[in-house]
Amino acid sequence: MAEERKNLKKLCIHTITTKPWPIETAAQEFSAAGIGGITVWRDALAGRNIRQTGNRLRDLNLEVVSLCRGGFFPALTPEGRQKAIQDNLNAIDEAEALGAPMVVLVCGSAPGQSLADSRKQIQDGIAACLPHAEAANVKLTIEPLHPMYAGDRSAVNTLAQANDMAEALNSAHVGIAVDVYHLWWDPDLETQIKRCAANNHLSAFHICDWKTPTLDMLNDRGLMGEGCIDLKQIRGWVEKTGFTGFHEVEIFSNLYWQQEQSQFLEKIMAAYQQHA
Amino acid sequence: MAEERKNLKKLCIHTITTKPWPIETAAQEFSAAGIGGITVWRDALAGRNIRQTGNRLRDLNLEVVSLCRGGFFPALTPEGRQKAIQDNLNAIDEAEALGAPMVVLVCGSAPGQSLADSRKQIQDGIAACLPHAEAANVKLTIEPLHPMYAGDRSAVNTLAQANDMAEALNSAHVGIAVDVYHLWWDPDLETQIKRCAANNHLSAFHICDWKTPTLDMLNDRGLMGEGCIDLKQIRGWVEKTGFTGFHEVEIFSNLYWQQEQSQFLEKIMAAYQQHA
Repeated sequence: MAEERKNLKKLCIHTITTKPWPIETAAQEFSAAGIGGITVWRDALAGRNIRQTGNRLRDLNLEVVSLCRGGFFPALTPEGRQKAIQDNLNAIDEAEALGAPMVVLVCGSAPGQSLADSRKQIQDGIAACLPHAEAANVKLTIEPLHPMYAGDRSAVNTLAQANDMAEALNSAHVGIAVDVYHLWWDPDLETQIKRCAANNHLSAFHICDWKTPTLDMLNDRGLMGEGCIDLKQIRGWVEKTGFTGFHEVEIFSNLYWQQEQSQFLEKIMAAYQQHA
Repeated sequence: MAEERKNLKKLCIHTITTKPWPIETAAQEFSAAGIGGITVWRDALAGRNIRQTGNRLRDLNLEVVSLCRGGFFPALTPEGRQKAIQDNLNAIDEAEALGAPMVVLVCGSAPGQSLADSRKQIQDGIAACLPHAEAANVKLTIEPLHPMYAGDRSAVNTLAQANDMAEALNSAHVGIAVDVYHLWWDPDLETQIKRCAANNHLSAFHICDWKTPTLDMLNDRGLMGEGCIDLKQIRGWVEKTGFTGFHEVEIFSNLYWQQEQSQFLEKIMAAYQQHA
């Protein structure tokens, strides 16, 4: 049991992974299992006092790893883009109140304009939020998303693109999230992980698995070990850079959300120890 | 009408696009509409004399653009890989009999081994088939597939990877198919199209559109103009290299396969003239 708890100290679970649980239940269950971290999705904070919620998580010995999510900067109108920036400023305030060191960005993509335009609006949007992020000491973490989301969720689809953007933004308050689900296929991944870490931009590491077949483009992610991602190899690349952060389990799954969440949590912990 | 027919001379339609039609019906309808080319899927040849079918297509003034598809080289066992090579040798024979100048390869990916291993097996498999392809004067055309198919359909997921592989194979009988559905998201696409053409490897251009949302990972492709791909930009990049080949409409769509195929063909021609 001591060994098991040691292994779980770097495990972090996203509240959306156990979506049926309210954050209070999730926090108690994660804490009781000896899990070290929690990443909070903003919907889980609805109706709560954010500062008190953050304190409660820390009282349960949970480290608040990040707040998910900001982003969605591209829009076809200046008003739409300004609204997105305001939402990200709010997310920064929420992260500060919660005590989360970063906001993870799903960058966005606007059908009806080119990916190049969307990418420029993403970079401009992050730049517009950076002074506020610096003042709050909250990092803005770019998460490159799988190319199958290029049409409507993110025009940043490879780690190379995220590295380019983070280098251009050139701020200690910009980070990058490496999520195996989005990046596992990329033949350039090892090289880009090294580059990301050498730039001091590698700020989050998300894990799950890619099932074959995948039945739903959004909500059919697999538990570690259920799919075809060589998780240990990618984790090796990440840790070889000196990364000592959390391994964050982020699983959207209609299948698992229908199951009893305590049993699902047991499966997550077993899969983490065996396959991640 | 004369103008319309002129526009359709470089249009080619894949038999799978109008899957409910047997090839005889498809050929008559395409020919009557003034369409210049047809790409034949192997399932459409089941039970037919292949050589006679090829002659019949040419009698209808249809150019046989390619045979789809070979590939699926990776396998966990030597027997599995040898079986795949044999199937590709058969495909080359079928292409020769049909009078198709190339076999398009969906390269394959074997869950249970690394993508790097699958890629090596793809390259080795193509190399093993090349002497037969040269003897038959049939080109083996690598089609990089969207990264969402990396798990089980192709470990070649970018044009850069296809270019690398084609360069390594270094044969006049290796080509590459640029399909906008698979490649549109890639920020490196224009550069890699130039490289592909400069190497004399650009042998096919496939068109359709990416719908948002996409409801099915395999069979929910859109008609040109229905989605977010900037087709005219990509076509411009392709034609700027000097490419004068066909524009091949390859649409897998549960939606369109349920419709009356003559009406669907009208929609394809209108979409081609307006959006491609």
